Amino acid sequence: MSLDKFFDTVNQDQDNYVAKLKEIVAIPSISCVAERRADTVRMGEWIIAELERLGATTKRVEPGTQQLDGQTVDLPPVVLATYGTDPSKKTVLIYGHYDVQPALKEDGWNTDPFTLVEDKEHRLIGRGSTDDKGPVLGWLCAIEAHQKIGLDIPVNLKFCFEGMEESGSEGLDAIIAAEAEGYFKGVDCVCISDNYWLGKTKPCLTYGLRGINYFGISVKGPAQDLHSGVFGGTVHEPMTDLITLMASLVDSQGRIRVPGIMDQVADLTDAEKKTYEGLDFSHADLHAALGGAKTELHADPQDTLMHRWRYPALSLHGIEGAFYAPGGKTVIPSHPIGKFSIRTVPDMDPHTVDKLVKEYLEAEFKKLNSKNTLTIICGHHGKPWVSSPDHWNFVAGAKAVERVFNCQPDLTREGGSIPVTLTFQDALKKNVLLLPMGACDDGAHSINEKVDRRNFVEGIKLYGAYFHELAAVKTE
Amino acid sequence: MSLDKFFDTVNQDQDNYVAKLKEIVAIPSISCVAERRADTVRMGEWIIAELERLGATTKRVEPGTQQLDGQTVDLPPVVLATYGTDPSKKTVLIYGHYDVQPALKEDGWNTDPFTLVEDKEHRLIGRGSTDDKGPVLGWLCAIEAHQKIGLDIPVNLKFCFEGMEESGSEGLDAIIAAEAEGYFKGVDCVCISDNYWLGKTKPCLTYGLRGINYFGISVKGPAQDLHSGVFGGTVHEPMTDLITLMASLVDSQGRIRVPGIMDQVADLTDAEKKTYEGLDFSHADLHAALGGAKTELHADPQDTLMHRWRYPALSLHGIEGAFYAPGGKTVIPSHPIGKFSIRTVPDMDPHTVDKLVKEYLEAEFKKLNSKNTLTIICGHHGKPWVSSPDHWNFVAGAKAVERVFNCQPDLTREGGSIPVTLTFQDALKKNVLLLPMGACDDGAHSINEKVDRRNFVEGIKLYGAYFHELAAVKTE
Repeated sequence: MSLDKFFDTVNQDQDNYVAKLKEIVAIPSISCVAERRADTVRMGEWIIAELERLGATTKRVEPGTQQLDGQTVDLPPVVLATYGTDPSKKTVLIYGHYDVQPALKEDGWNTDPFTLVEDKEHRLIGRGSTDDKGPVLGWLCAIEAHQKIGLDIPVNLKFCFEGMEESGSEGLDAIIAAEAEGYFKGVDCVCISDNYWLGKTKPCLTYGLRGINYFGISVKGPAQDLHSGVFGGTVHEPMTDLITLMASLVDSQGRIRVPGIMDQVADLTDAEKKTYEGLDFSHADLHAALGGAKTELHADPQDTLMHRWRYPALSLHGIEGAFYAPGGKTVIPSHPIGKFSIRTVPDMDPHTVDKLVKEYLEAEFKKLNSKNTLTIICGHHGKPWVSSPDHWNFVAGAKAVERVFNCQPDLTREGGSIPVTLTFQDALKKNVLLLPMGACDDGAHSINEKVDRRNFVEGIKLYGAYFHELAAVKTE
Repeated sequence: MSLDKFFDTVNQDQDNYVAKLKEIVAIPSISCVAERRADTVRMGEWIIAELERLGATTKRVEPGTQQLDGQTVDLPPVVLATYGTDPSKKTVLIYGHYDVQPALKEDGWNTDPFTLVEDKEHRLIGRGSTDDKGPVLGWLCAIEAHQKIGLDIPVNLKFCFEGMEESGSEGLDAIIAAEAEGYFKGVDCVCISDNYWLGKTKPCLTYGLRGINYFGISVKGPAQDLHSGVFGGTVHEPMTDLITLMASLVDSQGRIRVPGIMDQVADLTDAEKKTYEGLDFSHADLHAALGGAKTELHADPQDTLMHRWRYPALSLHGIEGAFYAPGGKTVIPSHPIGKFSIRTVPDMDPHTVDKLVKEYLEAEFKKLNSKNTLTIICGHHGKPWVSSPDHWNFVAGAKAVERVFNCQPDLTREGGSIPVTLTFQDALKKNVLLLPMGACDDGAHSINEKVDRRNFVEGIKLYGAYFHELAAVKTE
């Protein structure tokens, strides 16, 4: 069946889609701070309204409350929706998230992060444009285009959109477990669009993800910050202890110094090594993504991909409670909290990682003979995930890519973590496909986050084509 | 001569003085950020108006411009003033500063930092209350009280109030040098009230200060912040290099690890050691100032004072450009700048300290084999200072303390730096006395900065008594 009419409609209506993206980027749905919780809930309600406008039936699930910034706040709703219930059709469950990372103009954005702008290169710039509001909206636009030309969607759709992905998907796992035999009953496969192409031009299907363990190192000394002139040299400074501990975690070649971490990493087989040979990736792509910096750790591009996809990494993110502004404040911070995370891979176990990190840091702290008080905060977890790219769900995805982009997709893994992938796989026992919309240089979590207009528009076509290929693909 | 009438007047009018302090605390004259420069200038203008209302003649000196937060801004004015020109009287030059450190409610203040509040213990809480708006205002209140009762001030007063003390006193040195034989001609001694009592009950005169060298360690990698999932393990992370370098500066026992720094410290003589024996100081005072934390580095209180006054210290203040908020952002900062400073003592030379630090950090960075770019930023300097407590200026100060507080003052040094002290001594070749108003627990540069009402009110009396003792003291 030709999809030309559908594709034409998406082309014609693309400005409407971009206007809608602008409308939702303007809602600062930052899930990690209490003061933006109302905006995050508002974003969830926008999606419910849009789904209902399109004729879906929706169910708003309240995951409960959390402690955040010293207060008890409601978690944002998980939006469930059903579009089509024909028992003769396959049913695909689509997941996305409507919350975003923090963003401040002062961080270095060229434009206001919450005002979507399009530049000369047709980049649509704004927080959430690619992570993950663009993809979430894309699915809805694909439905709208079908309705406009009276084209039947040949699969049943179920949706699950959450507002806590950037903050550990709090509350979601319990809902998925509870609905596995309820709202999600009858789902045949799952599709998630929340990652990125390997390069800037060629689409991919993704079958593996790293997990994450997030940590805080809290070192508490005096009851309040001190003047370094008055107290410097006379007290155990919490920052000195903290910085020493942070420095003990990883070296400048990226090697994790916590004993036992690397022992858990699955061996690289020859067969696996071979899969890296055909991939469309060079260090020129990496350098471009780094804005021209040639600061790669590994000489061989395949090593770079392996260290992104199948080896763990430890990143130091920053310090809460220390001086962070421009200028020269002479303060001894009383209670700094260092933040870092470990990207995890098969066969690492999150609880073992927590235990190893905690034991190591406590032992290192003991060596310091400090009178300050150490607390290791084990934050959110996401397990690593690897799937089979031979499953019919991936075959349908590959055919959809061929129809829209006229090429075979790369088969990739990802360095980032989308913990819900594994949650769906474990709870529903169904195959999960990651089908990204954005390109490698979109800058998710960074300043000047963008999605290219091409990726957004062709992504909507890809989602529609995927519906049709799913309906057609053989499941044996 | 009895000063009872003066003291009574100060007691009676104290609420007016506190109301004035509240008025000027409300002006957020933060000198280290461009966006508060207009407020800083406004604060200088408030002082000019107040001096003129009291009958002083004033001179507003513009120190020029500076580069701040990416723009060229005017430096706040240096306010010079003369009150009395009787050639038969001694002339004392009084210095203070009207700028303050940054302060945000979110830093942990119990109340708005720029709204002075008085709590049940009669603490006057607000940014600048003790550092240094309380003392600056105190001098003006002492004049006002004299005028009210028609009491002659038996010395000529000259004032020098600046608005850049918290930012390296930029522009001031040139003005002092230029006015040494001009506006400051005829000055017999100098008095500065910008430090603190050793304890909470007993006043002191201060004859020594540590200096400061402030540094930034800039490590630059990619052009923008990166997502740690996508890039973790594949690039040299600037934070890893930065944290490693920061950890190489000082150990958890407060020992400075930069070679050559300790070699410059003047030896402790037996005579000097003896002066530490009679001081009113115990670790209970320190613990109180730490809000109950017992995190002292040294077992002996005398060692604590020596490490505050006559040994150098290195404090790590924080990191600009990294993640600093609550929550769990998974960012690889692209260009973090670590901030630290060294408190310096005789016979350390600021330029030698800069050189040693720069060479050491560059050598340490080389060992890391990193592809990132290091820049060491040598910030503002203040040389250490030691004076003679036998000078008549100190004798007058001690007698004034006796009249107001009925006790002999402690003779102390200070751990903090007031670079202008040495500038005045070098430029005018006159003795400089530090005569503090605030107590050891005032929390300058910290959250909930305060001055006790008792210190503020008795401080005003002390300043007035000092005028009279100065007039009476023999200068041979």
